[in-house]
Amino acid sequence: MSTLPTNVQKLVQYLERLPGLGPKSAARIAMYILKSPKNYAVEMADVIKDIKEKVTYCKTCFNLSLSDTCDICSDPRRDKSTICIVEDALDVVAFEQGVEFEGMYHVLGGVISPVSGIGPEDLRIKELILRLQAGNVSEVIISTNPNIEGEATAMYIRQEIKVSPSLKKLKITRLARGLPTGADLEYADNTTLKRAFEGRSEF
Amino acid sequence: MSTLPTNVQKLVQYLERLPGLGPKSAARIAMYILKSPKNYAVEMADVIKDIKEKVTYCKTCFNLSLSDTCDICSDPRRDKSTICIVEDALDVVAFEQGVEFEGMYHVLGGVISPVSGIGPEDLRIKELILRLQAGNVSEVIISTNPNIEGEATAMYIRQEIKVSPSLKKLKITRLARGLPTGADLEYADNTTLKRAFEGRSEF
Repeated sequence: MSTLPTNVQKLVQYLERLPGLGPKSAARIAMYILKSPKNYAVEMADVIKDIKEKVTYCKTCFNLSLSDTCDICSDPRRDKSTICIVEDALDVVAFEQGVEFEGMYHVLGGVISPVSGIGPEDLRIKELILRLQAGNVSEVIISTNPNIEGEATAMYIRQEIKVSPSLKKLKITRLARGLPTGADLEYADNTTLKRAFEGRSEF
Repeated sequence: MSTLPTNVQKLVQYLERLPGLGPKSAARIAMYILKSPKNYAVEMADVIKDIKEKVTYCKTCFNLSLSDTCDICSDPRRDKSTICIVEDALDVVAFEQGVEFEGMYHVLGGVISPVSGIGPEDLRIKELILRLQAGNVSEVIISTNPNIEGEATAMYIRQEIKVSPSLKKLKITRLARGLPTGADLEYADNTTLKRAFEGRSEF
């Protein structure tokens, strides 16, 4: 990259660290920013600083928020008896867009991942248990991703709930496993097909 | 995106406009920036502003530069008699990394593209002809991309050189066409195979 101006090289290095970008796509994006109208680039730079300054976590559900209590937690119309446990804020977005769910959320902030050095104490699991022990919750829907780390996290959370005497009556559910809509049975992986077979329902 | 804080939504909208990014990847990048160390995000924002303020074009070759004359044009060791004509600054980077080329460059700033409303007058073609007419250049290597728009631009430039009486002796070359290294003949497209056949050399 030696023929690019030093500050452009520096921007490429910053961009390369973003998820999904490699050296080539980072360079292309840097070129786009260079050619774009000045106000676009300046406003984007300002909003990057703004989110780092102002975005915080909701004290109840740990979703991203601009105040101590997020819009969902402060909405009186939502059902406080059901909590959907998700990995991160984008999962909340997915649920709000795709599912007619009127309950509350609890954002873990990741999954248990020994490889990345993330243990249960790095997630909002203790806060979840305390929240559940405070009462009034009848069901938790564990909605971690259906992969090894998500599964391990789900099992850990279930265990933590089970060992808490005051949560004996709490209903614990998790999302259904099976073939995704539009899938091709022929190309489905073994585990997915096995889960779809095991979970077959009357038709 | 209604459950994300407004400034995060705004950042996602800015990121979505970058080449190669869609709504999902833009959201993932916004999350990454949120979770990243504050100095990373702030420095990236600062460098975005910095490039918009300080990066300019070399007055000779129109490569990106922090001053009126880029490092290549001001390097006395480089051969001023050969000019490699490329579409943009990233092509210069590719040449400098992959080819032992000791000549000069001329960065067009794009290609002729009627669909995008880009005509020859939007590129640095007039400046190229003036630069060639100033003398001392014996060869130009037209290195636009081997696609329809790049070809059209190459042909336009060749024509502009041909009609200039003072450039009668100028040698005009272009990059070889053929099979890329590591390619599988079976999967090569017809045009590539045809060009490789036409351009076959003694072995």
